[in-house]
Amino acid sequence: MTYLWDDPATFADDALAGFCDLHADLVRQVPGGAVRRARPERPKVAVLPGGGSGHYPAFYGIIGPGLADGAVSGNLFTSPSAQDAYSVAKAAESGAGVVFSYGNYAGDVMNFGLATDRLRAEGIAVDNVVVTDDIASAPDEGQRRGIAGDFAVFKIMGAAAEEGVDLASVVRVGRKANERTRTIGTAFAGCSFPGAAEPLFQVPDGKMGLGLGIHGEPGLRDVPLSRARELAADFVRRLLAEKPADAGDRVAVLLNGLGSVKQEELLVLWRSVAALLRESGHVPVLPEVGELVTSLDMAGVSLTLTWLDDELERLWAAPASTPAFRRGRMADEPEPRAVADEQREVEPVARYAPASAESRQLADHVLGALRRVAAVLGEAEDELGAIDAVAGDGDHGRGMVRGIGAAVTAAEEAQRAGAGAGDCLAVAGDGWAARAGGTSGVLWGAGLRAAGEVLGDHAGGAEVAVKAVDALTSRIVSLGGAAVGDKTLLDALEPFRTELQDAVAAGAATGIAWTRAAEAADRAARSTAELVPRKGRARPLAERSIGTPDPGAVSTALIARTIGDYLTGEHR
Amino acid sequence: MTYLWDDPATFADDALAGFCDLHADLVRQVPGGAVRRARPERPKVAVLPGGGSGHYPAFYGIIGPGLADGAVSGNLFTSPSAQDAYSVAKAAESGAGVVFSYGNYAGDVMNFGLATDRLRAEGIAVDNVVVTDDIASAPDEGQRRGIAGDFAVFKIMGAAAEEGVDLASVVRVGRKANERTRTIGTAFAGCSFPGAAEPLFQVPDGKMGLGLGIHGEPGLRDVPLSRARELAADFVRRLLAEKPADAGDRVAVLLNGLGSVKQEELLVLWRSVAALLRESGHVPVLPEVGELVTSLDMAGVSLTLTWLDDELERLWAAPASTPAFRRGRMADEPEPRAVADEQREVEPVARYAPASAESRQLADHVLGALRRVAAVLGEAEDELGAIDAVAGDGDHGRGMVRGIGAAVTAAEEAQRAGAGAGDCLAVAGDGWAARAGGTSGVLWGAGLRAAGEVLGDHAGGAEVAVKAVDALTSRIVSLGGAAVGDKTLLDALEPFRTELQDAVAAGAATGIAWTRAAEAADRAARSTAELVPRKGRARPLAERSIGTPDPGAVSTALIARTIGDYLTGEHR
Repeated sequence: MTYLWDDPATFADDALAGFCDLHADLVRQVPGGAVRRARPERPKVAVLPGGGSGHYPAFYGIIGPGLADGAVSGNLFTSPSAQDAYSVAKAAESGAGVVFSYGNYAGDVMNFGLATDRLRAEGIAVDNVVVTDDIASAPDEGQRRGIAGDFAVFKIMGAAAEEGVDLASVVRVGRKANERTRTIGTAFAGCSFPGAAEPLFQVPDGKMGLGLGIHGEPGLRDVPLSRARELAADFVRRLLAEKPADAGDRVAVLLNGLGSVKQEELLVLWRSVAALLRESGHVPVLPEVGELVTSLDMAGVSLTLTWLDDELERLWAAPASTPAFRRGRMADEPEPRAVADEQREVEPVARYAPASAESRQLADHVLGALRRVAAVLGEAEDELGAIDAVAGDGDHGRGMVRGIGAAVTAAEEAQRAGAGAGDCLAVAGDGWAARAGGTSGVLWGAGLRAAGEVLGDHAGGAEVAVKAVDALTSRIVSLGGAAVGDKTLLDALEPFRTELQDAVAAGAATGIAWTRAAEAADRAARSTAELVPRKGRARPLAERSIGTPDPGAVSTALIARTIGDYLTGEHR
Repeated sequence: MTYLWDDPATFADDALAGFCDLHADLVRQVPGGAVRRARPERPKVAVLPGGGSGHYPAFYGIIGPGLADGAVSGNLFTSPSAQDAYSVAKAAESGAGVVFSYGNYAGDVMNFGLATDRLRAEGIAVDNVVVTDDIASAPDEGQRRGIAGDFAVFKIMGAAAEEGVDLASVVRVGRKANERTRTIGTAFAGCSFPGAAEPLFQVPDGKMGLGLGIHGEPGLRDVPLSRARELAADFVRRLLAEKPADAGDRVAVLLNGLGSVKQEELLVLWRSVAALLRESGHVPVLPEVGELVTSLDMAGVSLTLTWLDDELERLWAAPASTPAFRRGRMADEPEPRAVADEQREVEPVARYAPASAESRQLADHVLGALRRVAAVLGEAEDELGAIDAVAGDGDHGRGMVRGIGAAVTAAEEAQRAGAGAGDCLAVAGDGWAARAGGTSGVLWGAGLRAAGEVLGDHAGGAEVAVKAVDALTSRIVSLGGAAVGDKTLLDALEPFRTELQDAVAAGAATGIAWTRAAEAADRAARSTAELVPRKGRARPLAERSIGTPDPGAVSTALIARTIGDYLTGEHR
């Protein structure tokens, strides 16, 4: 959806005006688009990309030194008029001629063509570089549409013009860049115009439109949505099959988001693209990953390769400074010092206290209980996630599984090294906190460490268990700052703690007391469903959770019960 | 939706690895996050923002000179662990201490707090700057969550650290910046985790969640979706009500997109925000409009103001060079020359040929017919838009209305200036092409000009009408390159042309011949429903259009019929 507008009919004009206000130091609005505010010191070729709006930063977002001298901007997905192109060219030209550059669309070809005729009639040198990079749009290169590869062609022409060469030379490198540029894209979901109730087109659920154009033009076909690495493989394979005959192994790369694809998704995709290009013997040169040619809020992505020769590489690498794209060193930036890719040792080196034979024996049981908890939490992961998803981000199960897994690993290592029960439990806590992150991770990690420190070299026993649970609870309270009734894990932990204390005081054996306490925790966890989370706390959609128990309380009761079962021998 | 991933469980790790691969010259991955690759020449305070993933460019996207020395990065929407923070700090610190900075969330506060304890125990100077800018999250400033205002605080601390001041000074300016930073946000639609079938939260259709947090935390309330200028007014009013007591009138401004809001939408919103701030006597200083702190693919936007004093303004304006944010001049960039905001005259100055009285009289009829066509197209705008929306972008009606409106205006001006019929028609074409843009705009514009040139100083008559229509058709064919059967306006225009020619040759009067030709055009337009658009042509979703007539053919037939009615006196 496109959500923000004042008047759908003037959306493109309003966005251009906003841009020119925001970047008033750099650009100046003229009828039909915008031009650089600073006039060149001496005549230079004006590089003028253009086309319909809705593709930001194409086209006016890349006005600036080293790139465009101006941009011709039409209505949404509609070519600018010949008058627009004429007007921008008149404002931008400084005596060395003008080159219009745009994707190969009928309306653009006609309107820029008419403007060219009119400017030439006035004695201004003008030429056109039409971009045809979309390999999905037609078998014949000359018939292809222009999509994200636009950017590579504009960048290379902008750099050439900045070097001060003549119009014919700028056009020559632009056409060479276009001949060596190939793009393949895919769309996951359509885009919508401001004020439109429906998207311009839709992609069936679970599918993607391979080769779909940036205005929704037909592509190759709908195919099942694939994982990032499969998509990367398909893209790279299709582009390498189109490698120009005389091309070398150095390529400019654009991994371009169409609008609603997240930068983090592009970075995940980049990992596979980069690996595949390198495996194929190619060297990505200054790759760009981000939004370069978009389509309103379309969800989609495209991959562009420009096979470089020495000239194109120099121009691709040249500095540029525009609102949406910058390349090169800053004026005040220190030259980076080359350093070895050092990897400092930052994992804590575990040092274990000397342990008695009894404590080492108890360590085996600590480890056994942790393993049993890991198994039970693994089984409960999806259920805990579902409870958490009601009002949270649904990752409680995953976080607990990561944490207990790391705890078991750390405890195993300690046990192998001859550590006692206290150290095993303490490093289990360290492992949990290190690996799980989040609130539950740090609380369980610090709590287990506190319990381990109480356990120390003791050989076990009900009183020590009570003290260890006290320490764990105190640590969690002091760190987390929650009180009973706040709908947190404390609502299960505190009833567990008091019931254990009472049962042990009444003379119950550890296993019996623990089981009784676990039952209390279980009842308390279930009754958290009636609670409202503490006000003012940064918790997702707190009010939604009424009627659902707190996932932290549920997992706490589950851990308590599992350890109780272990202690009473049910699962040893 | 989040579409691209390899494994939902490792999405955040994979994105970080992709980032560190892409920017290997600048950053180096370490356990728990990333740090600058270049070690400082001499000890400097390490500024380390951090938090959960899913907020790119927060936090690792802003590593670089003038900003962050490293970033601590947790799992999606989950605080990093204390071990993560410790690890990144150890890799980044260079002898002058470390400052962690993060939004005020329980997990972050605890984990960074534990890492701080551990680092201090090793003798490393460490402090924390907690950001609390979200005015919607709590009345008490100390209780508020940190959202996009994070960026302003990080930027200012990064600049201070780059100046070489000590840890206490960096922390002091960071806290001052936080105390003077206020943010209000709104969400239009929720975000979704990789692999999740449902979004984390949803906003009811037609509503927006005012003040909703960047992880979906509860905000103020759901309110009806408003236009950009109303939203800007509400945002600015709420922020100005929170102006710090000692604040002046210079403000750093961040207009931040949460993920799926398009840059063009932000630019539209910026227009109103900028105007309102200036009206209130504020001066926006180096405003930033873009994605600075996101929430996966959430659709939403936030506005941040930081009231600047001289010190904060110097630091806000200082250069910075990071993958996602750069400020300052490039090393090789020429100093921009100040130029007057000149506005060259680029509108064509119309010069009309001397016209006979008969031709001036005919010009009245030309204008009358154009006005009638404008009225009919205005009535048909929605219908033409609906036909176009089946397979196109739905703007055919709007484009035609814009074009004919401009044509009428130009013809009226010519008529008032005493131009003849030929010139009136020719400048009507120029006006249409200039205003409408797109393919239909240029074709109708050039076609009318060609017809006008044939009409010249003639006084009218059937033979001239035939020749004018021939010229119009030829021009459209030569410009557009379409053939009959390609499902374009030519499929109505060519039958019209031949029928008109035949009827006139058979001796029919102009009005009769024209009406007969218009009937042929109408039949032909309707039968374009059965056609398939020409292959290889850049047309949206061509295959969808089967069963629907071509909108250009329909409007052509409508124009023909309207002129016929005018000629036969039905609507004069």
